[in-house]
Amino acid sequence: MARIVEAIRMAPTSSGLQPFHLFVIRNAELKSKLKAAANAKDLVTDSSHFLVFAAFDTYTEARIDAVVARHAVERPGTEAALDTYYDTLKASYLPRPDDVNFDHAARQTYNALGFALAAAAELEVDSTPMEGVDNAKFDEILGLKDKGLKSVVALALGTRQAESDWLLPLKKVRTPAYDLVTDLN
Amino acid sequence: MARIVEAIRMAPTSSGLQPFHLFVIRNAELKSKLKAAANAKDLVTDSSHFLVFAAFDTYTEARIDAVVARHAVERPGTEAALDTYYDTLKASYLPRPDDVNFDHAARQTYNALGFALAAAAELEVDSTPMEGVDNAKFDEILGLKDKGLKSVVALALGTRQAESDWLLPLKKVRTPAYDLVTDLN
Repeated sequence: MARIVEAIRMAPTSSGLQPFHLFVIRNAELKSKLKAAANAKDLVTDSSHFLVFAAFDTYTEARIDAVVARHAVERPGTEAALDTYYDTLKASYLPRPDDVNFDHAARQTYNALGFALAAAAELEVDSTPMEGVDNAKFDEILGLKDKGLKSVVALALGTRQAESDWLLPLKKVRTPAYDLVTDLN
Repeated sequence: MARIVEAIRMAPTSSGLQPFHLFVIRNAELKSKLKAAANAKDLVTDSSHFLVFAAFDTYTEARIDAVVARHAVERPGTEAALDTYYDTLKASYLPRPDDVNFDHAARQTYNALGFALAAAAELEVDSTPMEGVDNAKFDEILGLKDKGLKSVVALALGTRQAESDWLLPLKKVRTPAYDLVTDLN
């Protein structure tokens, strides 16, 4: 689990903003509440660790300043370049509607989800990403509004139960490369 | 490159929809045109392979039917369950505004981007994901509108040039785990 969380933490994000927060949930009572808000999907409570990715509800000056401050500490001598870059970013992001900024943050979250899924597969941890939950209820249960966050996607992790997994013997189905990819040489 | 593209193709997506198309661009003239629409960023033309991820502009009955048909072929005996599942999905997705569906498709694209970046890192291929381009111009150059696609994110891939990479010696900077992750045990 520590390695999967670290893959999420180290995933690159646009301008290094890392505009999300990760909740790693093992508490049984909390999982039961979230299950009720997730169409009663058993895998919420069957998982050993239930992860909820919550994105920034918008970008703020304070949130961007925190990124600049961290870079200034870790990369001494780059302060001037950092200020130029992030001042431009602020001028672009801060006037945008919240939903545009949230959408941008949500996309970064899905990139980190990709790293989590790849890490889980390598570590042979079973994973099921989950959309289609009642996000408003998730946000309420986790108290996200006060934190300036909105739930985006969840990820159930655990040990494979091969004998009861009806999907396991089925062939993996993907779009063929000739339909999905165009080479322009 | 084949392995990176395969990582993208095999990335999981919501309900298996794989709602994007990948353009793998080596053509120098095309890269020059895209560079002009990407704030003249040198890495468009410096890359050996410039990838553009384009998401479905919306979900349609035909697009969902193509997924069902592929699953029916590869997973014989599941036709009835497939119809039930994807009929429900159609009832939910098809009446939604195009921008809601595009946003959903774009998120799946970023998940696949995560797989591409993890694969590139493992293969020691240098990678730079790229936002902030003129997406309307990208769409025009690649003729995406007629294909029902919209550009979402790009990825420059190539051989590391360590001697001219000013970022390479700098420390990687990330949000500390105590700020990014909350354990709820």
